[in-house]
Amino acid sequence: MRLLLSSAAIACLSLPLLADPLPSWNATDTKARIISFVDAVTDPDSPDYVRPADRIATFDNDGTLWGEQPVYFQVIYAVDQVARMAEADLSILDSDAMKAAAAGDMAALVATGKEGLVEVVTAAHSGMSVSEFKADVAAWLDTARHPDTGRPYDEMLYQPMLELLRYLRDEGFSTYIVSGGGIDFIRVFSEAAYNIPPNQVVGSSLAGEYKTDGDGPRIMKMPSLFFIDDKEGKPVAINHHIGKRPILAGGNSDGDFQMLEWTTSGDGARLALIVHHTDAEREYAYDRDSHIGGLERGLDEAEARGWLLIDMAADWARVWPE
Amino acid sequence: MRLLLSSAAIACLSLPLLADPLPSWNATDTKARIISFVDAVTDPDSPDYVRPADRIATFDNDGTLWGEQPVYFQVIYAVDQVARMAEADLSILDSDAMKAAAAGDMAALVATGKEGLVEVVTAAHSGMSVSEFKADVAAWLDTARHPDTGRPYDEMLYQPMLELLRYLRDEGFSTYIVSGGGIDFIRVFSEAAYNIPPNQVVGSSLAGEYKTDGDGPRIMKMPSLFFIDDKEGKPVAINHHIGKRPILAGGNSDGDFQMLEWTTSGDGARLALIVHHTDAEREYAYDRDSHIGGLERGLDEAEARGWLLIDMAADWARVWPE
Repeated sequence: MRLLLSSAAIACLSLPLLADPLPSWNATDTKARIISFVDAVTDPDSPDYVRPADRIATFDNDGTLWGEQPVYFQVIYAVDQVARMAEADLSILDSDAMKAAAAGDMAALVATGKEGLVEVVTAAHSGMSVSEFKADVAAWLDTARHPDTGRPYDEMLYQPMLELLRYLRDEGFSTYIVSGGGIDFIRVFSEAAYNIPPNQVVGSSLAGEYKTDGDGPRIMKMPSLFFIDDKEGKPVAINHHIGKRPILAGGNSDGDFQMLEWTTSGDGARLALIVHHTDAEREYAYDRDSHIGGLERGLDEAEARGWLLIDMAADWARVWPE
Repeated sequence: MRLLLSSAAIACLSLPLLADPLPSWNATDTKARIISFVDAVTDPDSPDYVRPADRIATFDNDGTLWGEQPVYFQVIYAVDQVARMAEADLSILDSDAMKAAAAGDMAALVATGKEGLVEVVTAAHSGMSVSEFKADVAAWLDTARHPDTGRPYDEMLYQPMLELLRYLRDEGFSTYIVSGGGIDFIRVFSEAAYNIPPNQVVGSSLAGEYKTDGDGPRIMKMPSLFFIDDKEGKPVAINHHIGKRPILAGGNSDGDFQMLEWTTSGDGARLALIVHHTDAEREYAYDRDSHIGGLERGLDEAEARGWLLIDMAADWARVWPE
């Protein structure tokens, strides 16, 4: 009897979903095109059918699955971390970027440019083991709150995208994060937030070093860049980690352009999505001139390339989870 | 009715296997210890129980899952490739290593040391796109034959290890390759040979570069090393690709030492396996002084560390698949 129940339960899981798989999406063309693409690649009788093993979907994280304003959340973590580090050792404040970070002056930090951001993030992310780092990020996520919404950062997730991830998995896709953010950072919350396990998270990283002295075997985070998973780096990292070309990719900024281009230049049916931040009321409205998540080339070329612009204000019935 | 049949089929897959899961293993202590470890981590009532998501098993490839004598098969591919390249352009033969490779003189090539090997492999593995490279490796595997056995290289697989991989997956493990060999090279045959998909292959790699000029978007293999997945590199690569510490790892040489050490230094039940090549009749016998697959520290420390030495001659009823 136990066996019968269990096989019945398994059978239920493989039944087509009768309910709307994307309830937080308005009934626009955008939603229709997503569903029609998924139908085409999963229907064995369709000329566009793709076997489950090749149903790879890759998503940027910042601004695509969770928020990124007023500044990347990982930078906020780094700034908080540098402030804590400076309490113990003021000598680390040896540059404008580090001083701005310790003072919590985000505008001054952003003014130091990408180099300044990398310096601060590197300082905050190195000199400890991976497991120490992850424990610290987890503790930070427990207490830190977003300056505008007051929510924990790992609740600044886009409900429609959570539904899309789940819908794709229900339809036999493997869902990956391919982010310019740090691979170890994202792995702290990716499983709970998105149901995406660590091995399906691809990101930027510092060099790692295996140490066995003192406290036993551990992987140390070193203060040198190993890989920047942005722009041209995204297709390279997809090849390195996944070894297959995605058939669906989603992003929101020009840092995702090459991932979408790589995805859609393969044979057969392909879908590229760009989350366009058009919703100043419920979230933020920004694109071309934004210092975070700038979107210019993607906006100019989306239509000609057949990429789908998601208009947050029009296409999403809600933005945040309950 | 179709639904009933299908759910019955699914139910069967989840029934415990009644047949011997490792038929090509003799009934030795080695086999008993492997099965007892798997039982312990999969039995929900066991104090050593591990949830399926954390049942990560990593295996070296050369000398652990397939052969590696008289020299790594990938080096044989590189030598064949350099000989073909030299037919078109003799000027590439600008070093002793490249000359030895083009002449097919393996002894002379090995005499040029690790540097010579890296030079030849790099020359043979760069200057083309990843997909061109993979197509070329696939064509080579179709025609090249092992000098001693006459078998295709992708049939030089160890049958007992194929059974172990399958047994572990049947018991809810995720099986990964973590090899000093090239990640793109192994991915050509890993799915057909081992049922291990590309995203579960970790290996050494050259730098990749995303190009869009000329023939459209592609990932080029560049003539510079990106990562050497050997010794201390293995735990680092495991963290980078998998993001979790394995609970079981298998290797055969001192290049695997750190992977086994990293695996077994975690909390809870852990198992480390070393394939010890003791079988000169059916395969090869080598360890301490071998120029390929040298095993010295692992042999000296296995017992004290509780690592399991697999004695090929005694523990395996057969070596090769039918």
